[in-house]
Amino acid sequence: MSQPTGDIGLIGLAVMGQNLILNMNDKGFNVVAYNRTTSKVDAFLQNEAKGTKIQGAHSIQELVSKLKKPRKIVLLVKAGDAVDDFISQLEPHLEKGDIIIDGGNSHYPDSIRRTKELESKGLLFVGSGVSGGEEGARYGPSLMPGGSTAAWEAIKPIFQATAAQVSGEPCCDWVGETGSGHYVKMVHNGIEYGDMQLIAEAYDILKRGLGLHEDEIAAIFEKWNKGVLDSFLIEITTNILKFKDDDGEPLVTKILDKAGQKGTGKWTAIAALDAGTAVTLIGEAVFARCLSAIKDERIRASKVISGPQREPFRGDKQQFIDDLEQALYASKIISYTQGFMLMRETAKELNWNLNYAGIARMWRGGCIIKSVFLGDITKAYEKNSKLESLLFDDFFNKAIHKAQPGWRRVIAQAVLWGIPTPAFSTALAFFDGYRSEIVPANILQAQRDYFGAHTFKVLPGKENERLQAGKDIHVNWTGRGGNVSSSSYNA
Amino acid sequence: MSQPTGDIGLIGLAVMGQNLILNMNDKGFNVVAYNRTTSKVDAFLQNEAKGTKIQGAHSIQELVSKLKKPRKIVLLVKAGDAVDDFISQLEPHLEKGDIIIDGGNSHYPDSIRRTKELESKGLLFVGSGVSGGEEGARYGPSLMPGGSTAAWEAIKPIFQATAAQVSGEPCCDWVGETGSGHYVKMVHNGIEYGDMQLIAEAYDILKRGLGLHEDEIAAIFEKWNKGVLDSFLIEITTNILKFKDDDGEPLVTKILDKAGQKGTGKWTAIAALDAGTAVTLIGEAVFARCLSAIKDERIRASKVISGPQREPFRGDKQQFIDDLEQALYASKIISYTQGFMLMRETAKELNWNLNYAGIARMWRGGCIIKSVFLGDITKAYEKNSKLESLLFDDFFNKAIHKAQPGWRRVIAQAVLWGIPTPAFSTALAFFDGYRSEIVPANILQAQRDYFGAHTFKVLPGKENERLQAGKDIHVNWTGRGGNVSSSSYNA
Repeated sequence: MSQPTGDIGLIGLAVMGQNLILNMNDKGFNVVAYNRTTSKVDAFLQNEAKGTKIQGAHSIQELVSKLKKPRKIVLLVKAGDAVDDFISQLEPHLEKGDIIIDGGNSHYPDSIRRTKELESKGLLFVGSGVSGGEEGARYGPSLMPGGSTAAWEAIKPIFQATAAQVSGEPCCDWVGETGSGHYVKMVHNGIEYGDMQLIAEAYDILKRGLGLHEDEIAAIFEKWNKGVLDSFLIEITTNILKFKDDDGEPLVTKILDKAGQKGTGKWTAIAALDAGTAVTLIGEAVFARCLSAIKDERIRASKVISGPQREPFRGDKQQFIDDLEQALYASKIISYTQGFMLMRETAKELNWNLNYAGIARMWRGGCIIKSVFLGDITKAYEKNSKLESLLFDDFFNKAIHKAQPGWRRVIAQAVLWGIPTPAFSTALAFFDGYRSEIVPANILQAQRDYFGAHTFKVLPGKENERLQAGKDIHVNWTGRGGNVSSSSYNA
Repeated sequence: MSQPTGDIGLIGLAVMGQNLILNMNDKGFNVVAYNRTTSKVDAFLQNEAKGTKIQGAHSIQELVSKLKKPRKIVLLVKAGDAVDDFISQLEPHLEKGDIIIDGGNSHYPDSIRRTKELESKGLLFVGSGVSGGEEGARYGPSLMPGGSTAAWEAIKPIFQATAAQVSGEPCCDWVGETGSGHYVKMVHNGIEYGDMQLIAEAYDILKRGLGLHEDEIAAIFEKWNKGVLDSFLIEITTNILKFKDDDGEPLVTKILDKAGQKGTGKWTAIAALDAGTAVTLIGEAVFARCLSAIKDERIRASKVISGPQREPFRGDKQQFIDDLEQALYASKIISYTQGFMLMRETAKELNWNLNYAGIARMWRGGCIIKSVFLGDITKAYEKNSKLESLLFDDFFNKAIHKAQPGWRRVIAQAVLWGIPTPAFSTALAFFDGYRSEIVPANILQAQRDYFGAHTFKVLPGKENERLQAGKDIHVNWTGRGGNVSSSSYNA
């Protein structure tokens, strides 16, 4: 048969798959399309793909035979068994150096496993986060590929051309080893939960606190979208607030306040707990959705539990609105600080060399959290790829110091008003704990030693012959009348 | 051989096991002791157990042969494989109706599995939480047995006599089916994390906020321990604060502020995320320990991040201290409300019939969280075993309304001071969200429909021909200039 001409193959012709193929075709690549139900292949070629260079395949064998080496095959199928099924169908037809790319919403432990399994067979595996939905897939998604490093050079031209471009730079770069691509996508989704919750809290404060109408709130968001908060989510929230039902009422006021979730925010919170990293804002954002979901119980609660008398706001409204912008900005800085902390911890644990500047660059466009803000994070990690914390970067350090007074005023006011700000508040609590050389965990350690003999260590600077540096110290707290003798320590 | 005389057998002669045996022996039961390393059995009989009715066994077979039917055998061995090993060693020697009890710190999914496996073989399994440490085991622990319901009548006399007693009632009752005993123990530990964190935050506010000395703080805790906060943890914290090093300095000020953890708090937070229940306070308590653990990074942060100028407190100190007591109390009410919510949700999911009044009664004594407070929770569930939320109980509803103003003043002040109160704040945020008929999740749903076509439902009372009750509604948010026509809906 003739020489293969396919640059890349794609399995799974749901809308995401079709759009990604059309996008790659637009960028000049020769794509071979395959789907388990092959009638879908024909339908696609006769309709959406009509008049393009896109080729179809009616069997795995035909798909493989139409691809140039090293073969590159993208799976866009349901996460889970379907991915493993197709991998085992592909294996017998592939040769050393061929590349299987999973572009689905796989959980990263599966991608770690698949990378190892395929590499042990001489094949290469890439787990790639794909963000931006159907729209992004068609015109430029955010692509977060990680896995077999040897695969990157081969897929780089296609991936970077297909991805969204921001000021000439592609929203796609190599993330790192094994499951890091899907891990970073998971963290992206968690951060998305956080950004959305912060916006919801700001809306609530403007509506219930200041008593503003959706049109007034839309004007505020529109203004914010020209400043440090400039982002896709602020932009669409502005449009949402302006959107009227036929009776002229803002449609948003007619939407049931029960938030759904697909679980990736939950995955991030669990990953944070497992890594022992304080990613509190995403945690609160996930829990806020859980609380919204028990609407009927909240209605019953609202009838028997009353809050404070909410006095009309007597202060300077514009000042307060500016404070709120700073509160949202500062909380967002904390959320991303926590997200990058989590990636850093996991990278340590799994020996990944993560490309932090690249991650921020990938998120800068093509996805839900795209923002000017992520451009600043990119700069911070470009300046210092080893940056320990975003809060140590000059730009963000200045920004959060500037935001701090308004941030505190807003939360204090919301607390007195009785308006819940779980995300604003946990961000500030993290900030105040993080910048504290001493936190009251000495009390916890004393309690644990008291009731469970768990021992503690001495605070540097307080050492003495009984409290020796580095030693695990136990005290017989009840044993004596309040005086210590060395005998009551077993270091 | 002679008739068996053993009432119950126990495997595992570490301190917990030895103490539980001695405790059961004191209560008049004939206990047979076995340990894999049999020299430990002889040592125990010749020392701690000398002069008691306690019998020893040098093989599984001998252990079983010395027990009356139905045989009751408690495992106090390391959680995990050791439990399964001993179960399979025991099985061949047991008969229908015999009972294996796991008193270790097993994770509840294992107990669910073991109950099913053993019941399928005609044997009975009980997974029992045991709380109170070595002290509790010896003189009266909190026992939380769940599993094969048929086993309860047989073990009840021994368990209830062995457990701690509070005003004539044992801190042991039947929890429920399969893994519920270990599940409830896990939630107990999570709540313990929360209670400890709340105390640490109160200490921090008194020390860094009001600038009080440990002796003054101890006096405050001592007073609190005579009121609504009367509990073991407040009591030991008082003793901890009074405890001096030889130089007269409070020892607690010399303890390294890095909290350790053994993971059960984390298990609870993960279980909450999996159940979709907003158990925010335990989540923040776990994350607070994570933040305390990165001491070196906090030190570096403290040098480059400054907080607000902390002005000396000019208000009424005693009023503020009373407010703080109410803040701690209210936050504690929320934490237990969330914990019981979690148990209720899990019970629904796993078809457990949980004994809520019994659970509170079990926690009332013998364990770390024992308190007068748990007596009030017991009463609430005795009054109404179907109570949907602690906040719907008259006593707690009144209590939290009374506490509310001070609770808000304390958090607002701490926010302005720059003292972190993650647990106080998340408790209040939950309270304000829970009592809100409308939360701003309508924004989240609009955003999700905007960027992902996830659809939303109409708010009851706002239905019209385009927004029909119960329908999944999608809007083409960008499609038009702000006006809705029915065509932009596909219900």
